Amino acid sequence: MFKVNDNYQKLPGSYLFSTIARKVSEYQAAHPDKTLIRLGIGDVTQPLAPAIIDAMHSAVDEMGDAATFRGYAPDLGYEFLRNAIAENDYRARGCDIRADEIFVSDGAKSDSGNIQEIFSVDNRIAVCDPVYPVYVDSNVMAGRTGTYDPTTEVWSDVIYMPCTKENNFVPEFPKETPDMIYLCLPNNPTGTTLKKSQLQEWVDYANRVGAVIIYDGAYEAYISEDDVAHTIYECEGAKTCAIELKSFSKNAGFTGVRLGYTVVPKELKCGDVSLHAMWARRHGTKFNGAPYIVQRAGETVYSEAGKAQLAEQVAYYMKNAAAIRSGLAETGFEVFGGVNAPYIWLKTPDQMTSWEFFDYLLGTANVVGTPGSGFGPSGEGYFRLTAFGTYENTLAALERIKKL
Amino acid sequence: MFKVNDNYQKLPGSYLFSTIARKVSEYQAAHPDKTLIRLGIGDVTQPLAPAIIDAMHSAVDEMGDAATFRGYAPDLGYEFLRNAIAENDYRARGCDIRADEIFVSDGAKSDSGNIQEIFSVDNRIAVCDPVYPVYVDSNVMAGRTGTYDPTTEVWSDVIYMPCTKENNFVPEFPKETPDMIYLCLPNNPTGTTLKKSQLQEWVDYANRVGAVIIYDGAYEAYISEDDVAHTIYECEGAKTCAIELKSFSKNAGFTGVRLGYTVVPKELKCGDVSLHAMWARRHGTKFNGAPYIVQRAGETVYSEAGKAQLAEQVAYYMKNAAAIRSGLAETGFEVFGGVNAPYIWLKTPDQMTSWEFFDYLLGTANVVGTPGSGFGPSGEGYFRLTAFGTYENTLAALERIKKL
Repeated sequence: MFKVNDNYQKLPGSYLFSTIARKVSEYQAAHPDKTLIRLGIGDVTQPLAPAIIDAMHSAVDEMGDAATFRGYAPDLGYEFLRNAIAENDYRARGCDIRADEIFVSDGAKSDSGNIQEIFSVDNRIAVCDPVYPVYVDSNVMAGRTGTYDPTTEVWSDVIYMPCTKENNFVPEFPKETPDMIYLCLPNNPTGTTLKKSQLQEWVDYANRVGAVIIYDGAYEAYISEDDVAHTIYECEGAKTCAIELKSFSKNAGFTGVRLGYTVVPKELKCGDVSLHAMWARRHGTKFNGAPYIVQRAGETVYSEAGKAQLAEQVAYYMKNAAAIRSGLAETGFEVFGGVNAPYIWLKTPDQMTSWEFFDYLLGTANVVGTPGSGFGPSGEGYFRLTAFGTYENTLAALERIKKL
Repeated sequence: MFKVNDNYQKLPGSYLFSTIARKVSEYQAAHPDKTLIRLGIGDVTQPLAPAIIDAMHSAVDEMGDAATFRGYAPDLGYEFLRNAIAENDYRARGCDIRADEIFVSDGAKSDSGNIQEIFSVDNRIAVCDPVYPVYVDSNVMAGRTGTYDPTTEVWSDVIYMPCTKENNFVPEFPKETPDMIYLCLPNNPTGTTLKKSQLQEWVDYANRVGAVIIYDGAYEAYISEDDVAHTIYECEGAKTCAIELKSFSKNAGFTGVRLGYTVVPKELKCGDVSLHAMWARRHGTKFNGAPYIVQRAGETVYSEAGKAQLAEQVAYYMKNAAAIRSGLAETGFEVFGGVNAPYIWLKTPDQMTSWEFFDYLLGTANVVGTPGSGFGPSGEGYFRLTAFGTYENTLAALERIKKL
């Protein structure tokens, strides 16, 4: 008789955002007259930029003509896109990342879930706490996390690096030495980030202890301060210890378009085993490329028109972030983030738990947010609001919250 | 110090089609004057059908308008697509598969590589030999296949079910009992398939021994004979033992568009553990949906116009298949397949190995095919040609082969 992967049975409940979707849909069904404002899931609301729409129409036309039709894409992604990424995201920042170190994918969620596959199941992982749940969940499925304590919501074999207002959301080097360190910077959900000098310390630490850093830079486009690195490869020595994941979802609104990439430098090795070769093998065996049309859309992100239009989109969302930050602060909330990221992280009032505040906000203000505890044990007592709504909805949500 | 997944080091060489691509590109570089005809990789050449192009343009326009913009897709895929699949691919064939048992993905390659994750690493897999290499390779990466013998090209813990001309390409029940049985029907690479009564025997066998069947139906659209099942769920009892993978690459030319789906019936369980729930968790954690534009393209595959246009495409490729079959037979080759599938499987002449014939065909006729041994040990001495070229190229390739 076949057996299943028992690690799946250890996972408590469902994926965070699936749970929220269910709760919201149940509430809406029970209260069909209420108009909800969704500042929960980190989904964008602005339409794709005109330059990107034009590029996609052209690519669709190419697919309809035998002379320009494209079948299977090259394993790593089309050169036109990898070259644009290497030039704009790396060389323009002084980082020597080459096009053949870039793997184009269908999005950073897939990559952040899949990347652990090329590592030993014996590796010990360290995560910022709170953080994007996919890192821990994908390692639970692989069997790296030990047992789960439902009371503390802690996995026995995961090294948690608390990021709270007490340490100014800066993770400290853990007491136990990790093998794989997940860093999401700017951080989802706290909206905070590290200064470049602080990130350099992590790179030095990883090289010293022989750990690999999985660096998720999905929110890079929202960095507004000068002393923050836009890629981990701005730090010296990062090419021997870091893999970087990037998304087009937040800088270009591709949540429903699906595009991302992963950088695995050729210098990154375990003994004489090249991680680049391993990821290439994984990519070539279990993935068949992002759609041609989508890769052309990605290329346009780096065009002059694309850059200008997307800068406006980012500014639009950051105007929301500023409004939420100041609006909540005026109302007496303790707020963090929102300066280098489209997320506002707030302390729940009156000692409410994260889920209590979720239910309270949904039921009283009809505003959907995300419970901080869903991102890790140290997220308990916090709550995330996103700046990805429309400006009108964002202001309306603030008005409702002020009346609570 | 972090460690890597050692199973990757067991993999011999690179992914089959990457090796072919390298060899071809080296040959072309050395002989820039030669015009190659590629009948190797199973990539289509006809452009997308007009109805699909129209649907994609409309969907692109929707993405450019705030009122119709779509962000993250629902976890399982959009209902409009899942309903069209359930109606056309299942209910129209008398199979009671519901829309919520269908998981939309970025293609059958991803699904066929990923599906093994929800099973125990202790499970024993059985594969038809020869077969699409992803089944074995993805299980090597997971550590299910034991050790590799480079001389025999056999994995110690894989149960091979030889499909050769001696048994008319019909796999026999293995002596050792497998836990997971991969069936690709119509088969890639042999182009042969089972009658429905023979498939029913496999379903009965799986239910009897407690095995799960991973059924890859990527080539279903090419079935031309009446007594062949178009889905495994035409067989009684399949819903308690079978997962079905489907692709849009071959029936609709989506190799560069990327769309597929997997059916996990809710009745499929291991004890009281639902495989549907497990796959939903995997899908929700490590994947973020196929692009909206692509899902609209998929919906159009089931429209009246889409069906009519795609039937023409399939007929076009099958005309190629018939030409290759008869042309090679006239030249004295022993040929198989090509009746219910777009692949022709031929016995190499003069006792050549598969790779010898590959090099010979490339160097002498400048025609690219696929060595049978790349699909498994019993593929040695065979060779695959695809019908996915243009008609003109197919005839030209035949002329060259006849002159050998």
